[in-house]
This record gives sequence, C-alpha cells and structure tokens, in this order.
Amino acid sequence: MIVDVVNPNTTGSMTALVAEGARAAAGPGTTVRAVTSRSGPASIESHYDEALAVPGLLEAVLEGSATGADAHVVACFGDPGLDACREVARGPVLGIAEAAMHAAVLVGRSFSVVTTLARTAPRARELAVRYGFGEHCAGVHACEIPVLELETDPLARATIAAACARALDDDDSDVLVLGCAGMTDLAASLSDELGVPVVDGVAAAVGMAQALVLAGLSTSRRGEYARPPAKAYAGELQRFALR
Amino acid sequence: MIVDVVNPNTTGSMTALVAEGARAAAGPGTTVRAVTSRSGPASIESHYDEALAVPGLLEAVLEGSATGADAHVVACFGDPGLDACREVARGPVLGIAEAAMHAAVLVGRSFSVVTTLARTAPRARELAVRYGFGEHCAGVHACEIPVLELETDPLARATIAAACARALDDDDSDVLVLGCAGMTDLAASLSDELGVPVVDGVAAAVGMAQALVLAGLSTSRRGEYARPPAKAYAGELQRFALR
Amino acid sequence: MIVDVVNPNTTGSMTALVAEGARAAAGPGTTVRAVTSRSGPASIESHYDEALAVPGLLEAVLEGSATGADAHVVACFGDPGLDACREVARGPVLGIAEAAMHAAVLVGRSFSVVTTLARTAPRARELAVRYGFGEHCAGVHACEIPVLELETDPLARATIAAACARALDDDDSDVLVLGCAGMTDLAASLSDELGVPVVDGVAAAVGMAQALVLAGLSTSRRGEYARPPAKAYAGELQRFALR
Amino acid sequence: MIVDVVNPNTTGSMTALVAEGARAAAGPGTTVRAVTSRSGPASIESHYDEALAVPGLLEAVLEGSATGADAHVVACFGDPGLDACREVARGPVLGIAEAAMHAAVLVGRSFSVVTTLARTAPRARELAVRYGFGEHCAGVHACEIPVLELETDPLARATIAAACARALDDDDSDVLVLGCAGMTDLAASLSDELGVPVVDGVAAAVGMAQALVLAGLSTSRRGEYARPPAKAYAGELQRFALR
Amino acid sequence: MIVDVVNPNTTGSMTALVAEGARAAAGPGTTVRAVTSRSGPASIESHYDEALAVPGLLEAVLEGSATGADAHVVACFGDPGLDACREVARGPVLGIAEAAMHAAVLVGRSFSVVTTLARTAPRARELAVRYGFGEHCAGVHACEIPVLELETDPLARATIAAACARALDDDDSDVLVLGCAGMTDLAASLSDELGVPVVDGVAAAVGMAQALVLAGLSTSRRGEYARPPAKAYAGELQRFALR
Amino acid sequence: MIVDVVNPNTTGSMTALVAEGARAAAGPGTTVRAVTSRSGPASIESHYDEALAVPGLLEAVLEGSATGADAHVVACFGDPGLDACREVARGPVLGIAEAAMHAAVLVGRSFSVVTTLARTAPRARELAVRYGFGEHCAGVHACEIPVLELETDPLARATIAAACARALDDDDSDVLVLGCAGMTDLAASLSDELGVPVVDGVAAAVGMAQALVLAGLSTSRRGEYARPPAKAYAGELQRFALR
Repeated sequence: MIVDVVNPNTTGSMTALVAEGARAAAGPGTTVRAVTSRSGPASIESHYDEALAVPGLLEAVLEGSATGADAHVVACFGDPGLDACREVARGPVLGIAEAAMHAAVLVGRSFSVVTTLARTAPRARELAVRYGFGEHCAGVHACEIPVLELETDPLARATIAAACARALDDDDSDVLVLGCAGMTDLAASLSDELGVPVVDGVAAAVGMAQALVLAGLSTSRRGEYARPPAKAYAGELQRFALR
Repeated sequence: MIVDVVNPNTTGSMTALVAEGARAAAGPGTTVRAVTSRSGPASIESHYDEALAVPGLLEAVLEGSATGADAHVVACFGDPGLDACREVARGPVLGIAEAAMHAAVLVGRSFSVVTTLARTAPRARELAVRYGFGEHCAGVHACEIPVLELETDPLARATIAAACARALDDDDSDVLVLGCAGMTDLAASLSDELGVPVVDGVAAAVGMAQALVLAGLSTSRRGEYARPPAKAYAGELQRFALR
Repeated sequence: MIVDVVNPNTTGSMTALVAEGARAAAGPGTTVRAVTSRSGPASIESHYDEALAVPGLLEAVLEGSATGADAHVVACFGDPGLDACREVARGPVLGIAEAAMHAAVLVGRSFSVVTTLARTAPRARELAVRYGFGEHCAGVHACEIPVLELETDPLARATIAAACARALDDDDSDVLVLGCAGMTDLAASLSDELGVPVVDGVAAAVGMAQALVLAGLSTSRRGEYARPPAKAYAGELQRFALR
Repeated sequence: MIVDVVNPNTTGSMTALVAEGARAAAGPGTTVRAVTSRSGPASIESHYDEALAVPGLLEAVLEGSATGADAHVVACFGDPGLDACREVARGPVLGIAEAAMHAAVLVGRSFSVVTTLARTAPRARELAVRYGFGEHCAGVHACEIPVLELETDPLARATIAAACARALDDDDSDVLVLGCAGMTDLAASLSDELGVPVVDGVAAAVGMAQALVLAGLSTSRRGEYARPPAKAYAGELQRFALR
Repeated sequence: MIVDVVNPNTTGSMTALVAEGARAAAGPGTTVRAVTSRSGPASIESHYDEALAVPGLLEAVLEGSATGADAHVVACFGDPGLDACREVARGPVLGIAEAAMHAAVLVGRSFSVVTTLARTAPRARELAVRYGFGEHCAGVHACEIPVLELETDPLARATIAAACARALDDDDSDVLVLGCAGMTDLAASLSDELGVPVVDGVAAAVGMAQALVLAGLSTSRRGEYARPPAKAYAGELQRFALR
Repeated sequence: MIVDVVNPNTTGSMTALVAEGARAAAGPGTTVRAVTSRSGPASIESHYDEALAVPGLLEAVLEGSATGADAHVVACFGDPGLDACREVARGPVLGIAEAAMHAAVLVGRSFSVVTTLARTAPRARELAVRYGFGEHCAGVHACEIPVLELETDPLARATIAAACARALDDDDSDVLVLGCAGMTDLAASLSDELGVPVVDGVAAAVGMAQALVLAGLSTSRRGEYARPPAKAYAGELQRFALR
C-alpha cells in the first residue's frame, strides 16, 4: 500500500525528517511517499500560515490520489485542510494531531501536549475538544522553540524534554503528545527518558492510515464528504476548479 | 465607523445582495463597504470551496484593514478563515454563522438552521457545537437549493419557507437561522410569515461588529491571535508573506 | 431607538455610573434611559439578593415596555430575572453577564472574569456554562470588594487591576470580563494598562441590544417565552397579575 | 425530623395534595409540615410566575427554619429560588425537579419528563442539563393541561397516561418523571400501568431530604452558599433585609 | 425495610466498619445487613481488583435478593459491577461513589474527592463525569494510604485531614467527598474540623436507598436493566448461569 | 508481531469467525492468535454476562502476555474488562467498540451503530459518550437477533442490512458501525450494498493494535494503569492474586 505523507509547509529538510519518522512506523508492504508543498509558508505557526498552506496541500493530495496513494497523512499538528482533503482524496486522510490524540487515549487516561510556540497551544486544545478528547487532554505546554529551529537549536531536545517532564507533573497525565511534525525523531528517546508513552503524530497517523486501508475503510461519500460540486473558480486559484 | 463586508466567493451579484442586507442593519454613522473576493470559487458549498476561498478573503481583509476598516464581516455561513482573519485584521472580525447563532440564543431557547445543500448541514452543526451552542441548536435542515440558484430559482423563497416551517415543527425550536448569506433578503418576510424571529447572519454580524467597535473591543493580541510571526512564503502565494 | 438600562439594585448612585457607561457605548440615534429599581436590596451579592431584586426589576421592565423601550438591559452581572423579563418585555432583553461573555468569545479564545466577592464567583462560572461558554471561561477571580465599595474604596481600581493581571497569568486567557456593573468605568483604562480587551457588560449589552433591534429581532413568542398565561396573584405581589 | 414542604404557589388545595404525597414517602420518625406561600401566583406556568413566587417561598423557608425545620422541599417542578433558599435555610433544601431527576438516574438509563404546558418543557430540559443529566434526559413531553386543572379535569389522568406511554415509545427511555407537583398522586398507579418506574418529585425530594439529614449533611457555608451579607433593602420588600 | 450493604472485598474487619457507618445513617424501621464477599481481592485498588471482585459481589446480591433485601449498597468507591447488580437485584442498587456524588451536589456547588492511592484518582474523576457531575467535581486528591492501612496506620486520620484541607484550598470547592468505604468513620469529625459538609458514600447510599424504597422506586425492567437472558455458562463460573 | 484476539464468551465457533475477520485485516508480518475464554457465558448480552466474562478474559490476556503477545484485542462490543486488561497486559489492549468508533470518526462525520438486542443499545451509546464520541454517535439501532443466532439465523444478514439502511436514513449519518464481533464477516458486503463505510470492530482493533505496536506505544505505566499492587485474594478466584 502507498501512504503519502504531505508536509504542508515548504521546507524540504523538514519533509526529510518527517519521512524518516513515517517510514519507521510503516509496516512491511507499505511504501511511504513524502511530499513537500510547493506553495505557502516555510513553517506553520499561526492560523494565517495554516490557511495559506492549504492550497499547496490540496494540490499535493490531488496529485497523490491521481498517482496511486491509498491514504494521506497531513504532517502538521494544526491539521490544516483536513476536511477539504477528505472530500477530494481517493483514500482516507489523517491529520497528525488527530492521529496522535486518538493513539494517546488508547494507551492512557489523559495526555499532555508539548508544542512549539505558546500561540499555537489554544489551537491544540481546540482540536482536542473538537475530536472528542476535551476530558482527556489535561494540558497543552509550549517550549517556545519556533518550528524551523527544532532542527537547528542545539538546546531544542533538552528544552522539549524539560517541558515534557513539567507537563506530566503539572497535569497529572500519563501520556505525552508531541505537538509538531518536526519533533518526530524525539518520541522514542523521550519515552525512554520519561517512562511514559510519547506519541508522535506522524507515526500514529501512518499506522492508523494503514489500519483503515487494511480494514477497507475510506472517507464516506454519503453527505458532507461527497465529491464537491463542480463549479467555476476565478482568479489565481482558477486551476483548482473541479469538473 | 467603517464595516467591511467581504463576500468570500467570487460572484459579484451575491455581494450586491449581501451589501443591501448589511446596510439595512447598519446604524446611523456606519459605512458598509461590500467587497468581492478576487480569487476562488463562484460559490462555497464544500470544505474544498471553503479552503480555497480563504486566500482571496485574507487579501480582502488585509486591504480593508489598510484602508480604514474598523471591523470586518465574513459573509459565508461556513465562517471560512475566521481565525486567520482575526490575526491580521486591525478591528474585530465576525463570521455570519457565528453572529447569527449568537443572536439566536439571545432571542429564544433553541434555534433551527435552514441551509442550502444537505452536505453543508453537518458543518453548520459543527460550528454550533464549536461556538458553544450545541444544546441550543435543535436541528439543521437543507432546502437543497445550490447557493447561486437562490437568486434565480423562482421557487427558492417558497422552498425555503417550507423548510423553515418544517424545521420549527420537527425541532420544537423557537428561532430560525438562515444558513446562507444569499438568503439575507428573506429574513424579514419569513419572520412575518412564520411568527418567529428569523436571524440573517449578515444583519446580525454587522450589528455585532458595531457593538464591539462602540465598546472599544477588538481581537486580543495576547497569545493565539497576536500578529503572525514574519517568515518566508514560497510559490504562488509568496506575496502573502508578512514582514 | 430607546434602550432601557435597569439597575436592579436600589442604589441610585450606581445607576448614574451605569448610565454613563451605557451612553458611551450607544450609537448615534440611540437614547439610553437609566432606571433604578424601587424595591429590593441596595446591592446584589447573593442568590437571596438576586431573587428579591427581581420583582422591582420586572416592574421597571413592564413600565419601560409600556413607555416605548425598544430593548432592555439588566445591569447586574448575575443576570437576575432574565427569562421572566423576556416573557413580558416588548423588545429584546440582555443581561450584562450574558452580553459580556458573548462579546468576549468574539474577540479572543478564552476569558477570565474578575468579580467582586468570592461568593459570587461560582455563579459567574455557572452562567458561563449555561450560556455555552464553559470551554471559553478560563477562570473567575474575586477582588473581594463589596459592590457598593467599588465607588468609595480608594484602592478599588488598583485591587481590580491586580486581580486582572493575576487572572491573565493564572488562566492563560486572552480577554478579561469585568464581573460587576459597578466596574463599567474601568474597562477602557484597564485595557490600555493590560494590553488585552477588557469587556464591560454594560457597554456590551447596550451594543448587542442595538444590534438585535437593528436586525429586527426580539424574543420569540413561540413556546417558552410567549406571554405568560393570565391568572390570579395573591398577597402583596397581587398587582403583578397579568390580565 | 421535621421536613417542610413548601408549595410556592398560593393555591391551598394543591398544598393538601402535595402534603399527602410527601407523607406517603416519609419514613417513620419524620414529620412533614406542608406550607402554602402567602403571596404570588395561583399556579406557576411561566418564568414570570416563577420569579414572583420566590419572595413568598423565601418567607416560608425563613419561617420554617426559625420553627425547627430540619430540611425543606420546594414543591414546584421549576425549582424556583433554590439557590436563594439554600443560603438562608438552616437545613438542606431540595427542589422536586432536582430530586426527581436524581432519583430517575439511579433507577434507569434515561428518563422522559411528562409536564403540564408545552411552554414549560424547555425549562425542564434546561434544569436537566444544569443538574448534569443532559445525556440522561431523553425528552420532555407536555400534556397541555394547566396546573390548576390537574385537580379538576376529569380527563387529566388519562391524558397524562397517554403522554407517558408516548414518551416511552418516542424516547426509548426506561424511566418516567412527572413534571408537576400536582401529579404526585398519579405516580404509583401510572407505574403499575406502564411497567416502568414513575418518579414523583415530591416523594423523591422528601426521601432525599431525609437521607441528607440522616447523613448529617446540610448546605455548605463555605463560599457561594454562606449566609448573605447583611444590607439595606428598599421599598415594599424591605422586611427581607437580613441583619 | 432491609438494606444490604455489600463489601465487595474479602476483608471482614472492613465490613464491620462499614456496617457501623451504614447503621448510623439508617432511619428507624430500616435493618442494615452487612455482607462480606466470599471471593476476590482483600482490598480494591486497581481495575483488576475491581473486575475480580464482581463475581463475589454478584453472588452476595443474588443471595440478598433471595432473602428479602429491599435495596443494596455496593460499598466500594469504584462502584464495581453496579450495572450488573441492577439487572439481577429485586430492589434498587446504589454505589457509594454514585450516592456520595449525588449527595454532594445537593449541598454545595462543587466537590473535591479525597481518595486512597493516586492510581484510583482518575477512576473517581471518570465516575464523576459518567454520572453527570464533571462540572461539579473540582478535583480528586490522593492521600496515598492503601485501603487496608486506613484501619491500622496511626497517622491515617491526620493525613486524610490534611489532604482534605489542601483539596478545599486547591479546588475552591465547598464540599468534600471521602473516596473509600474505609473512611466512613471519619466524615462527621472531619466536617466539624473543616467546616464543610463531608460526604461519606456509605451513609449517603443507605439514605438514598431508603429514599428510593419509600418512594416505591426500583430499577426499571424496560430495556437495558431487564433480567438478563437465560443461557449456558461454561467453566468455573458455571453456577452463575441464570435460568 | 503477535496480536491476540480474545473472544470473551465461551463459544468456540464464534472465535473461529472472529479469527477470520482479524486475519483479513492483519498486515504482512502480523500473526493473529485467536483465543476462546475458558469460563463464563456462552454469549454476552447483558451487564451481568459482561461482568462474569471478565475473569476468563483476564486469564486469557495474562496467558497471552506470558507467551509473547505484542497486543490484545477484546472481541466483544461491550468492551468488557478493558481497563483491567490494560493493567496486566504487556502490550496495548484494544476493545472492538472502542476501535470501531475511533475508526468511524476518522472516515466520516457521524456514525450509527447497528447492534444485536435492544437491551445492549444504551450500553453502546454510553461507550460512545465515554470515549468522547457522543456528538458523533448519531444513533444506536437493534436488529433483535441474539448473538448466537447471528451464525444460524438464515435471515440474519437481511435483517441487519435492513437495520443498517434504516439507521442511515433515521440518523442522517455517513458511517455504520457493526455492534457485535459476530458480524465481522458482513462489513465488506454491507459496505458495497449501502455505499458507506461499514466498520467492523474486529478489523479496526487489529489495525489499531498494529499501529500502536509499530509506533512503539503501549499502555502507560504512570498512574492509573501501573501494575496492580500485589495482595491476597480469597475464595475461588484466589489464583488471580498477583505477586
């Protein structure tokens, strides 16, 4: 099976990192294709960034569907454009926040999210509530490292580890969720260090995508997620018009 | 005060209709500027349409803010891009679903939404829940008229009126909410006919925008809605990069 | 349009303060009439006070409706008698807690309430939950200044400002709501000082009342809020019997 | 132990009926004192009636507390003035809607309420949600018999029985709750007829009042329900001022 | 009336303690029969213990029903096997966590639970949510004393009292709930010491069981709690097969 | 990887069916071991059955963990004993209701459950709420076929298909969930017939178990799900005592 992992920001080095995390969690028989969006922000750290990442993301998903993808993972913790992707992808589409939170409640009572900038914390909480996990999400904690500095800041890992430890203490939670695709490489070692499950959304999403495909499940075409009605599009996004 | 009403689809005739509804609800001393998005779908009837309407909407909001808008109304019942608009607009930003639902719970116990296509009904319900009105939203009903046919279908008003009457009966609700900006001209006469408050989101949003401005309130810049961090943007949306 | 602002306690000096706040938020073309209840407690600081303020409040609303009020604002943060007022007023009726919370969620993600006595804090929380804003209300904080000392205590403003600052820190919220009509004069300066929107319920309620009237909306007469059935009343409240 | 059952409307014949229901559910060693309010509406069928019943109710509770009542039951299904009563009563105070709903969830999965006028149905639903039983309350059904006609309408029992049967079918519930103190005499025979538990709030409240007293529990005086602060009262309700 | 109080662990000395608490809360005319389970764990401190206590508990309830019990109390704060007991008992069945939480919300706004081991705290929170009291349950605090050491640890009472005081402060609650049947003897003195209602679930459950019986209420036989279908049982639990 | 699928009822033919469904959803490299409980009910159709199935289930999970199972699936839609299994299993443990509901919300907006006997429907609803999917679960429908007749009743498939079609219509849902392990063989053909995703919990659980194992995740040992404290067990379940 082919699982496409789309990095909806336009930074290729982050895609490489994500690809590694995705491949580590893929089962035998699964091919992971990692894709970088061709337009939009270099990193996603605001609602504005998120909104403007979606056209590039949709393009990648449409192309992936046309070239054999059996499932798609959107590798940004804000889960941008998820509903729109579901309408046009052939197979199931998973967001990494969504997948991480689903996995987290399967291995513990309550989870803490450790994210990048504090400004993204309320969004993570909002997603938890929207997905049904308001009671399980015990807190969201920021480490105040911008997304693109996760790769370059020599103190990044230590800062994140400290935020994780503090989160467990403050929230009395039993599971950690890493709140950024760029932290995918840290989950295993943080779990060893902290003695709790540390959920990386990239791995969780790849696993759940596989699970859905193996079970023969894809997005429902009854109602909300049916293929969008064909219509005219104007201006620079004109090529997105579906026939 | 200047209130910008942005039609995030690219159909100018609909903007004209919306402008009329907006002006009727504006108080003395308020100038309503009606704006049509320059790129994206001709009408918004799917998550896909919604997502691809947002860049054009953001452009209109950025321009409006730069040219004196004190508040902004996003005139599509899916409330696309609301959070992103809030980050970059100078004044408050209101969605019409949001404003309509807020108004509805102030004049009754429970409301029914009458919307266009059935595929948009779950989205309306989701918004009600997200805004805190899950207990107040008694039902969402579709009249199955596409957005752009609201203006042209000679039976549109009768069909909508019938859906409204059925909604009140089925849901035991006491307020109606019209689920599309293109229905703005129907609220008053439907209210007379049905004997209940019928909320048009355009009017509600203009009124609430005025209320916030008069009270000296605008989107908080503490945390989530602070101005987005400056960063590089790649590809065709490059010009959206904030400095 | 005429908006009646009723102070449901019997302290005239507080009405004067409230009138000022209300007029500052009224648009051109709106006349604010400020009314003091003729019977009941000098201030409202308990459920007992609240319950016993309602007959005087209802009297004021009935009189206001009979003399041309287009909308009514109940200027006590406990929102006493709101449902009863709605049944008998000609136009819409807004409580200041209700209006403040509605405004707060339109300009931020989560709000903290700063109120007078600690004993009223759970009531504020209860109202937030009842109105649908349980997830948005991040905390309620008391400054332990009795209502009537807000006007006389020289340290009142400083104490409230300190409570506001603490609330933002403790709750990680981005909007403040002032939990007493008697704080209406502080909103603007506290907002300047603290750098976040500070919502005064009096201003918010006047603005929302205007918005509803401009949109042609008033309380539904279908079902719960229909005019109460006529019936006999006994004892000292006999004159309240509706025909 | 002495349990006061206060009928907050001013109709003595209804008090007599309620007294009987209360005594039937009282254990050995419990004296039930039934009290009729001295001022306010002859029956409670609106928020307006409810609000204006509260002063008379508070008077009865204050007198009862001063003359030895160990607990108080407020015998109106809208639970008027409950919080205020709790602040000034010596012992615990139970509303009959509250007690009925508590009892209902202890003997089944979900309950249907059968009430008098349709206009009171949303209030019953609101109480269920407020008490925490939104998920358990499967529906509220009106029989459209005014409160005072429950005693005189020869078809009342049959109409109520039919509404109960319909409620079980429509709601797929397993418990019924009678939504008016004036239905207290019907619970046992309806239960026999319908084969499900039928909860009368008067009996439930007396039983729970006893349970609390036997367990040594009364309303907390820490915080919200502490005795109200002493203060001046103006106008006709002046005598309610607490010292 | 006969109320059976079943201790679902197999430690007789704890049953004796529970019996005393139960009898103190029983009204005149009520006989309390205290029963110790014959199989399973010596104390219940995990989901595993809870699950394995249920067969012994069911045996005790079946025997009690056959020998005249009018109601049953399950004296473990995890409320093990409650639904199963309800299906097979003749009269109503109360769990002590359930009863304690019901009582707590009747005498205050919000309660804190003080329990034994920290590992049981999330379970207490889960029960609060399941019963509808998620908004009322302000916190759950552990004193880290194993169940069986409650009777032997000379510092147990002091440790629990300290946890109670801390809970009130941390949670801003106004009622305490003791989270273990083995704390039944402490409620009265802790209430005196701390000045708030302290709810012991054993007393609360006995009182509520009486209330239900006096009101003629028992578990509904319509639907979920009807007698289980007869069927074959295999292996060592074979004798549990119902005919 | 080894995934143990435990049938917690004692009917071997049903285990065989379940094994087939499980194997069909397992990825390459996964060995499914299907196990039948050695004690308890022949089928699970009540809370009583469920409770008495748990000792046999725990035995199977303990044995499986000791013999190399990397994950466990509990193949009964009531998810019996899940928390207890999690405390003692080496790897993650999935219930089939839990897994099915998780999968359902990933491929649609709202799901309907089609279950066996009506008496189990409220339990399915309760699980949906407990897992966070109360808003997504649009309805639970019974086909009134006892569990063991699913295999023998020649009309079973047709009856279930009809219930599924009715559920989609009544609930306006877009996904179906089969509410019994014994329906595992029907999912694919029903999905073809009805044109919506039909989720079989057995397949979903196997897939999610694999996803968790591949992501290196297992039940947290911090807090609630730590290994239970060692202690004495009395009576016939004595051998369950952990050291």
